[in-house]
Amino acid sequence: MTDSIPAPPAATDRSCPDSAPRVVIVGAGFAGLAAAKALAGSALRVTVIDHNNYHLFAPLLYQVATAALSPADIAEPVRHILAGHPNVEVILGTVEGIDTTARRVRLRDGENVGYDRLLLATGSTSTYFGHDDWAPHAPALKSIEEAREIRTRVLSAFERAERARDPAERERLMTVVVVGGGPTGVEMAGSIAELARHALARDFRHIDPTRARVILVEAGPRLLAAFPDDLAAYAGRSLERLGVDIRLGQAVESIDEGGITLAGRRIPAATVVWGAGVTASPAAAWLGLATDRSGRIPVEADLSVTGFPDVYALGDTALCRDAEGRPLPGLAQVAQQQGTHLGRALRDTLTRGTPLPPFRFRNRGNAAIVGRHAAVFDFGPGRRLRGFSAWLLWAAVHVVLLVDFAQRARVSLQWLWRYLTYRRGARLITVPPPRR
Amino acid sequence: MTDSIPAPPAATDRSCPDSAPRVVIVGAGFAGLAAAKALAGSALRVTVIDHNNYHLFAPLLYQVATAALSPADIAEPVRHILAGHPNVEVILGTVEGIDTTARRVRLRDGENVGYDRLLLATGSTSTYFGHDDWAPHAPALKSIEEAREIRTRVLSAFERAERARDPAERERLMTVVVVGGGPTGVEMAGSIAELARHALARDFRHIDPTRARVILVEAGPRLLAAFPDDLAAYAGRSLERLGVDIRLGQAVESIDEGGITLAGRRIPAATVVWGAGVTASPAAAWLGLATDRSGRIPVEADLSVTGFPDVYALGDTALCRDAEGRPLPGLAQVAQQQGTHLGRALRDTLTRGTPLPPFRFRNRGNAAIVGRHAAVFDFGPGRRLRGFSAWLLWAAVHVVLLVDFAQRARVSLQWLWRYLTYRRGARLITVPPPRR
Repeated sequence: MTDSIPAPPAATDRSCPDSAPRVVIVGAGFAGLAAAKALAGSALRVTVIDHNNYHLFAPLLYQVATAALSPADIAEPVRHILAGHPNVEVILGTVEGIDTTARRVRLRDGENVGYDRLLLATGSTSTYFGHDDWAPHAPALKSIEEAREIRTRVLSAFERAERARDPAERERLMTVVVVGGGPTGVEMAGSIAELARHALARDFRHIDPTRARVILVEAGPRLLAAFPDDLAAYAGRSLERLGVDIRLGQAVESIDEGGITLAGRRIPAATVVWGAGVTASPAAAWLGLATDRSGRIPVEADLSVTGFPDVYALGDTALCRDAEGRPLPGLAQVAQQQGTHLGRALRDTLTRGTPLPPFRFRNRGNAAIVGRHAAVFDFGPGRRLRGFSAWLLWAAVHVVLLVDFAQRARVSLQWLWRYLTYRRGARLITVPPPRR
Repeated sequence: MTDSIPAPPAATDRSCPDSAPRVVIVGAGFAGLAAAKALAGSALRVTVIDHNNYHLFAPLLYQVATAALSPADIAEPVRHILAGHPNVEVILGTVEGIDTTARRVRLRDGENVGYDRLLLATGSTSTYFGHDDWAPHAPALKSIEEAREIRTRVLSAFERAERARDPAERERLMTVVVVGGGPTGVEMAGSIAELARHALARDFRHIDPTRARVILVEAGPRLLAAFPDDLAAYAGRSLERLGVDIRLGQAVESIDEGGITLAGRRIPAATVVWGAGVTASPAAAWLGLATDRSGRIPVEADLSVTGFPDVYALGDTALCRDAEGRPLPGLAQVAQQQGTHLGRALRDTLTRGTPLPPFRFRNRGNAAIVGRHAAVFDFGPGRRLRGFSAWLLWAAVHVVLLVDFAQRARVSLQWLWRYLTYRRGARLITVPPPRR
């Protein structure tokens, strides 16, 4: 027998008339979200599809991995961000393919979403350069789940070291290896070193966390290849002051549950973090397209995909070149500017028929954090900043950039608190640590 | 070849001399932590063992389950709380048994921890009254993992309702049933109703979250059996104003993946939350003891376990009676007072030989939250408070009770923000939702 309570009334559908052109955006990262915001309030029907229910402020993921921030501090529900715009609809779903002839996107649950214009902003994932067997032993830093996994591994290793009797095993447990000398690797290594030196310093009885070894490995000849030489050198010195052991020009030979092998040398390590390789997500395969080495889709100056006039690629998904023909880097600011540009351009094109203008990137400065109050900031030829002033600027910019006011208030308070006390507020072990 | 970097030096052991009597505390909840704090700085060696690395402020778990707070807002690493006390050691480990003859605790990893005095403060777990097959369909609210699971289920159900085409399925997805009319059930039902009515109200296009059905089921004749009649009646009216459908005197007959059957009636529901049964954790079995119906260990007036002079039980683990012979309820304040009392008493007994004084409970008021700014507060015969003033008092008390200042600052700011805006800051779907 079925309960007889009256059903809720038919839902209100507050979207545009069905006749309006439909723009579908796959991915609610920096590019997709910026495009959706630019299209909000227009006469177009906009649909945002993402496999997560939240927009992730990915540049701060390393702070979740090192227990400084909670996942909710750097993530906000997509539908909440776009709640005020009746012409924008949000679908929590996973895209599995595109039918460019019928102009529709196929979701994993079998549903199809039709489009007039399709924006592919699916971001990037980590790659182990053909060594997928390394993945279980060296989580990367691309999602909240991975950040939580890294946090659990680092904290659990200290817990086990506290109880270990064998000095060699204790040393292995207190060794963290970060692979990759780009911004992710540099930020992770600095942040883990600080976690051990400050936040954990007084908490143990049988080990001294300040003697933990943090090793940063880079196959290339120097750190931060995308930054000017002097900033990279400064970053290296800052990390070394924090106790980070930097190994340049050393390629990874193998990673297993016991540790890592590097240029013929074995380093026993309980925790290995992967910050080395990034590749575009499979959007190119949906279109049957050839890509560059990192899986990106070559686009025209207006961000449309060559041969697919109704399909656009942006953010980490797109291989977009600047006026000199150099590929634009996979940065949040590139993605955001492309999203805003394309959203506005499509609004004008579809409602007033104006042609799509070309995208032009404006460099607002590229930063990496190298410790609690040190950073490097590169604004282009001859304009750079480093040290505390760069850190302050970075902190201010990132607080402002966070997507809504609630997050700004929360993050800045915690940063202030952490800054004043060296403490970490999110040191929870909540996923089962690996048994090794 | 092994890497040749010098090993970290032998660890500093800052604990007491090995000859000092050793007090082992199993469980770092309210009781165990209070006992550890009372013993901190004494001449005794204290060891706290918990299977989590954090102390959980369990009374606020429902706010994690309903996306108002992040896990880290209500949990703090045990070793961090006790960091300033060199005579206290913390072990992250799972107890599997006790050898009362050899006076040692056996951990799952095979290690043994010897004691002179043993405090069992292992808390309680949820029970399905013999229907363990209900558990996968009706998570309880005893851990961070469960709170995160409930949050994911509630939010995912709204996401699926947004895309459901069948009206009956849409109604099922928008139905939440909370089982149990005690404080946990009342707080969950009120908080879910508010989540739907306020936080989610404008975020969807095809459903109206404010029309979600929240049903609160209680097998007994009224809500909040431990509270006076008038407060329980007020709580019921407050919940009904929030739109909660209260079903009293209706026992659960079955729970499965499609919904719940209640007194012969089937209610299709995508989300069922279990707040009905609580039983003590298996500490009694370790001692081979008979327990009361809820698994608690009967204790003497000084909290020692009858027949085991070196073993004490406290908090939810203990069946402790007041002067009138009535069992003390399973409340944080009972646990905390017992921990503080026993810690101080043991310090005096073991260092000065004074006899253990009996424990006496002082009722500081028992509260339940029935909405965003309504609560009931019972301070004993004739002294009670309800409504906004009770909510304010509850909020103030809980902010102050949170274990350290960092948490106080964070929680109070978020509460204030949520209070002013009806928003929820932690609406993340981060564990895979059930497929049904």
